[in-house]
Amino acid sequence: MTPLLTDFYELTMIQGYYLENRNPYVVFDMFFRKQPFGGGFSIFTGLEELINILETLTFQPGDLEFLKEQGIFRDSFLEYLKDFRFTGDLYAMEEGTVIFPGEPLIRVHAPLIQAQLVESLLLNRINFQTLIATKTARVTLAADGRGVLEFGLRRAQGSDGALSASRAAFIGGVAATSNTLAGKHFGIPVSGTMAHSWVMAFDSELESFRRYAKIYPEKCVLLIDTYDTLNSGVENAIIVGKELKEKGHRLGIRLDSGDLEYLSKEVRKQLDENGLEDAFIAVSNDLNENIIAQLIRSGSPIDLWGVGTQLITGAGDAAFSGVYKMSAREEKGEFIPTMKLSDNPEKMSNPGIKQVYRFYDKTGHPCGDLITLEEENINPDQTITFYHPMYEYTHITVSHCSRVEPLLEKVMQKGKRVSPSPSLDELQQRTRENLSHIPERYTRLINPHIYKVSLSETLKTLKFRMIDDFTSQHTETY
Amino acid sequence: MTPLLTDFYELTMIQGYYLENRNPYVVFDMFFRKQPFGGGFSIFTGLEELINILETLTFQPGDLEFLKEQGIFRDSFLEYLKDFRFTGDLYAMEEGTVIFPGEPLIRVHAPLIQAQLVESLLLNRINFQTLIATKTARVTLAADGRGVLEFGLRRAQGSDGALSASRAAFIGGVAATSNTLAGKHFGIPVSGTMAHSWVMAFDSELESFRRYAKIYPEKCVLLIDTYDTLNSGVENAIIVGKELKEKGHRLGIRLDSGDLEYLSKEVRKQLDENGLEDAFIAVSNDLNENIIAQLIRSGSPIDLWGVGTQLITGAGDAAFSGVYKMSAREEKGEFIPTMKLSDNPEKMSNPGIKQVYRFYDKTGHPCGDLITLEEENINPDQTITFYHPMYEYTHITVSHCSRVEPLLEKVMQKGKRVSPSPSLDELQQRTRENLSHIPERYTRLINPHIYKVSLSETLKTLKFRMIDDFTSQHTETY
Repeated sequence: MTPLLTDFYELTMIQGYYLENRNPYVVFDMFFRKQPFGGGFSIFTGLEELINILETLTFQPGDLEFLKEQGIFRDSFLEYLKDFRFTGDLYAMEEGTVIFPGEPLIRVHAPLIQAQLVESLLLNRINFQTLIATKTARVTLAADGRGVLEFGLRRAQGSDGALSASRAAFIGGVAATSNTLAGKHFGIPVSGTMAHSWVMAFDSELESFRRYAKIYPEKCVLLIDTYDTLNSGVENAIIVGKELKEKGHRLGIRLDSGDLEYLSKEVRKQLDENGLEDAFIAVSNDLNENIIAQLIRSGSPIDLWGVGTQLITGAGDAAFSGVYKMSAREEKGEFIPTMKLSDNPEKMSNPGIKQVYRFYDKTGHPCGDLITLEEENINPDQTITFYHPMYEYTHITVSHCSRVEPLLEKVMQKGKRVSPSPSLDELQQRTRENLSHIPERYTRLINPHIYKVSLSETLKTLKFRMIDDFTSQHTETY
Repeated sequence: MTPLLTDFYELTMIQGYYLENRNPYVVFDMFFRKQPFGGGFSIFTGLEELINILETLTFQPGDLEFLKEQGIFRDSFLEYLKDFRFTGDLYAMEEGTVIFPGEPLIRVHAPLIQAQLVESLLLNRINFQTLIATKTARVTLAADGRGVLEFGLRRAQGSDGALSASRAAFIGGVAATSNTLAGKHFGIPVSGTMAHSWVMAFDSELESFRRYAKIYPEKCVLLIDTYDTLNSGVENAIIVGKELKEKGHRLGIRLDSGDLEYLSKEVRKQLDENGLEDAFIAVSNDLNENIIAQLIRSGSPIDLWGVGTQLITGAGDAAFSGVYKMSAREEKGEFIPTMKLSDNPEKMSNPGIKQVYRFYDKTGHPCGDLITLEEENINPDQTITFYHPMYEYTHITVSHCSRVEPLLEKVMQKGKRVSPSPSLDELQQRTRENLSHIPERYTRLINPHIYKVSLSETLKTLKFRMIDDFTSQHTETY
């Protein structure tokens, strides 16, 4: 991929650093500020693709000519960009980790020019895939073990808005996608049978059903709402379902409109009365996690959920709030911490090179995350004070933990991947396992309990000392 | 592009058509059901790119092998796909047309297999770009002539969610994008100066501002909220602004947090008191059309708006509701109309091969659109009855129109473009002109007047006869 997929200001800034001969090693953190969808968790996704991109990032033919045409880039700088490669180190959480606001998800250690240039690209990849994996995890939790299919291509935000999202949706828990190209690219199972147009292409609904069953006896899911679900669709489907059953095959039907609770119950009754107890019912039509949860609560006999628009676009929150801030820069051979102060306390970042520890209680469930400076030693056997990230004097003490786990690991060294990329199946499995350990109060769809992310005493002290330093310096100067 | 970017059911269906030897010429309509963002209009966008894609659509290496691995496609069918090309005709509205629900925006005339296969791709391209151009038009209307910049890359839905959106945003009215690759691909002006990290890379804010001004004296927009906007940022910017002014250059400042009304007024005052009346103020920070309209109403002295997340994702409505339905199929050399009936009247489509006429009043403003069958002659001098698309007996009469304009034109013939593609500048200009003719009551941001889209008497009669026919047939059968 080309580094030209970047905000233009990254390029004006890095020319500035180049001309000022100012290219110290720096550390940037990616973190996010707010859980999407009013939820209590997100699923970190997009890392493996990001690593692949960073490994091969170089300017493509025509890129530098294009920059030259902008009239503000010097020849020496453009010459310098010719050999641009990402040679930094990357520390990150594993893809599929359950994540919470404020914690560094990725740390980029690189010369300033490199770390700056990759910002927009990194955020573009991680923000979107994390958004979609999170939405999908909510949908699959709502479906409570029944299969979910991703049907979003036609309403996705562009071709990659579909492709990347299919990948993220698989990691988030869908069983298959309708997006055939995503199947080819990522090895995700593909799924799909018929649209209304199939039914309309024949002289009668019954004929269209029979023809489909003849060609696909083993994968026959009939869409029964083209004309009239209960008076035409289900009756014709039952005729064909019985014919299939005689040959040892199983019918599926799909509902794509109307009151899905009422229709699924009526259709189930008619199928059962006609000896088609093994036939399954799939539904679609602008579903989301809340609609699915309600249909399940009301006992709707639905076996399979096709979720399109609302999953593929992360409806409710079209963007994930990930940001990228400098946390340290090298000066005379040492890293000094930096932070963004801002008028708004919520927009302040945490300074220094940091690690995140997840604490587990005696039953093996995560009970809180602690952000520390990297050099701190964390011993789960000791009582540890967790400080609120914004209110200096608010804290709790944590003891009797069974286990503590550092979440950031080195994933790239000098621009190269450290270990092989896990398969998508492994990533889906990892997400499912991680989610299964999180107590239900944090994953409930509406009004979840807030999982605590705190600062260690050392980090808290550094942060508030830096705020004080700036404030007092500032009062003297002005 | 590969036709594999498609929902899998398109492939199962077209294999069905192929094996049944059922490939009549058909007509599909693309239309949409509901204006996004609670608004009263949308801007049709994405057509020129769609035409380019359809002209070059062929299966790529590995595509057919991938399909074979699915285990349900016959060799004869895969052999048939090898030579797949789109050879149909396309009728469409011009890109940049103001559009309303229910009207065909595109008509695809092609053999059933082709028309079916391109469905998902067509919807993916048109739905997203139309969504973003519409959102952008709302934002630029709110900005009331002041410049709007598109800053969305980092929160966009994937790389193409950024690229396609930058194109659509330009057509919708932005002056420039931050997405450098979109600049290279589409020739859109690119824009951007500095982030907080520039300021944090130096020992002091003042030093960072001075260095930037030295390198970019002609494009110096200083971000003044890294530490403290009013007590540090603006004071340092004024120092540098005066130095720039002495050399004949103009300062710009950017605010990216806080109360933008209060801060912009305070900053304006300080700039003016220091002789920097010509300095301009840019703002960003999760803006949308409603926030911009409010800031302008309150007299905020803001010259330039950087809009990111909410524009690039169409926040508020993450998807455009375009659908694709068969409206006619050839039988024994004649086209017979088809329609989707459905239990839900709003999901019924309009049958037959159709045209859309826009009627203009004596002052030259559009006053209503009429959907007709293509063969009807529409004479604006006559009194014409406009029928409600869903309620059979609701109608109005329209007379004394100054002009009537057919909106659908042939844009592809036998798979090839009919006329050269207009430039993006032309498309932006066309959108602006089209919007300027629409009375304000239809474009107001909240609670707009509903623009009337009606059926001609002939089309209305056909539609309700087909509904009656189905209902009576159906009563006899069951």
